[in-house]
Amino acid sequence: MKKHRAKSPDPLPSWNDSAAKQAILDFVTRVTKKGGPDFVLEADRIATFDNDGTLWCEQPFYFQGLFAFDRIKALAPQHPEWQERQPFKAVLDNDMKALADLGEKGLLELVMVSHAGNTTEEFQTIVQDWLDNAKHPRFQRPFHELVYQPMVELLAYLRANGFKTFIVSGGGIEFMRLWAEEAYGIPPEQVIGSSIVTKFEMRDGKPVLVRLPQLNFLDDRAGKPVAINQHIGRRPIAAFGNSDGDLQMFQWTAAGDGLRFCLLLHHTDAAREWAYDRDSMVGRLDTALTEARARNWTVVDMEKDWKRVFSFE
Amino acid sequence: MKKHRAKSPDPLPSWNDSAAKQAILDFVTRVTKKGGPDFVLEADRIATFDNDGTLWCEQPFYFQGLFAFDRIKALAPQHPEWQERQPFKAVLDNDMKALADLGEKGLLELVMVSHAGNTTEEFQTIVQDWLDNAKHPRFQRPFHELVYQPMVELLAYLRANGFKTFIVSGGGIEFMRLWAEEAYGIPPEQVIGSSIVTKFEMRDGKPVLVRLPQLNFLDDRAGKPVAINQHIGRRPIAAFGNSDGDLQMFQWTAAGDGLRFCLLLHHTDAAREWAYDRDSMVGRLDTALTEARARNWTVVDMEKDWKRVFSFE
Repeated sequence: MKKHRAKSPDPLPSWNDSAAKQAILDFVTRVTKKGGPDFVLEADRIATFDNDGTLWCEQPFYFQGLFAFDRIKALAPQHPEWQERQPFKAVLDNDMKALADLGEKGLLELVMVSHAGNTTEEFQTIVQDWLDNAKHPRFQRPFHELVYQPMVELLAYLRANGFKTFIVSGGGIEFMRLWAEEAYGIPPEQVIGSSIVTKFEMRDGKPVLVRLPQLNFLDDRAGKPVAINQHIGRRPIAAFGNSDGDLQMFQWTAAGDGLRFCLLLHHTDAAREWAYDRDSMVGRLDTALTEARARNWTVVDMEKDWKRVFSFE
Repeated sequence: MKKHRAKSPDPLPSWNDSAAKQAILDFVTRVTKKGGPDFVLEADRIATFDNDGTLWCEQPFYFQGLFAFDRIKALAPQHPEWQERQPFKAVLDNDMKALADLGEKGLLELVMVSHAGNTTEEFQTIVQDWLDNAKHPRFQRPFHELVYQPMVELLAYLRANGFKTFIVSGGGIEFMRLWAEEAYGIPPEQVIGSSIVTKFEMRDGKPVLVRLPQLNFLDDRAGKPVAINQHIGRRPIAAFGNSDGDLQMFQWTAAGDGLRFCLLLHHTDAAREWAYDRDSMVGRLDTALTEARARNWTVVDMEKDWKRVFSFE
């Protein structure tokens, strides 16, 4: 006699029963169905995820930017000249308007001063110390707790179905690796991001990697497919993002043979998180939203589609 | 009554019972012994391998160099001016002396002309076609058959013990990825190498990555620890190489906490393969050999320590 199997538990309990959730479940069922027309070998089940605004928050400003500001404030006593010099003055005065007006050159200078001039090990200690002590201005929690619970479930669900999950983010590769494994279950070698140049050196007979104030790679927009090719060497079959910075990753993913899945988070929930898209300074979502709708990519309405946003709710 | 367990089969059957083999077995036993003083978590069992001269041959010249020469000969009919112009003339005349005298600038020009100016997909087709048709001048076999059987066994043995195996080679990342999985069981995302700049572009509405004639990264010498940090983000606990180009990878690996393992192949077998070291133009092994002996790293004498070199023997 055939035994009734217990119904398997919902792999995505923080998702409401919506079209988006169904699209995810359908895609995974189809690519994992052995002998089915859309079956994909495990080795080719590559899924890439943007980080800021896709796996954790990015408001009121990219968290790594807030780290840079805190770092500059910590270094300021050694640099009295910063009190009167931009871009530093804007940071020290908490002048958000001046910060917004800095432009790429000013922001890059802030990044270099706050991220370079140390060894990789020293930088890890600095970031870890910040993670242990800094608090998000709205939620008053450590930043690495502001990860989206529905996305954490989605990552685990994909991995349980043979996917290899990667981060492909504009954020700093060495900034993310410190906490990505604990927060998302993604090991360092599957974290891809922007980077500055590092240089191998012997110091007192001990080899170190020194972080130089020079951009190595910007992993955003057209840089994302380049980084995917460089680090992974296979085209993803699924990509997840939330802004125009992810458009080329979606295009690259969608252009492969066979079934493909592109999912765009639309930040629509001002009450539980934030609502922003086409006019936002942070995580602007404009052309990617238009293209997602035109191409029937899955667009998640965070307010309607997510039962909860954070694990601490 | 206790049953006698069958003796487990030798995981390294192509290795003679030597000090080198024993050093490998001891290291793996110690880092995998739960509760032992040298135990290493699976996630941290990272092993990095040079490729040319470590996993496959590099004589009479780096195989990718031979690919470049063949490619230039294939393109020559469209470039009549190459008949009289260096560095091309040296290739077309098979003038090894002139090739040796080209210097870095000339070699780089040959690399760019033979490797750039196509999309990543076009390049894969070109390399695959070469792999399918070109033959090694001495062994008269496809190049990807000239992999060292003892090293293939070692890779499998490490993986069976929870290691993640990576290639960290001066060779081209997109050149190696085409055959590394079949030859070594190493998937594309664990192949690290030198690269040229690629650029994302839309061509007739289809996204492509175009290979530009510009060096992106040279994964040799001091570049190896940089690449390891960039791609893996963890320090290896074991490293395998055969030339001075691997010295900094060894130093970086050895400088970590806990038990570490560095293994250097010494090409000593002129009969079955080649014998070369301090004066070789290809795969020069000089300072790394001196340092390996001073620091008691494992040095493999290929003539004495390997029962066989190739699987086809």
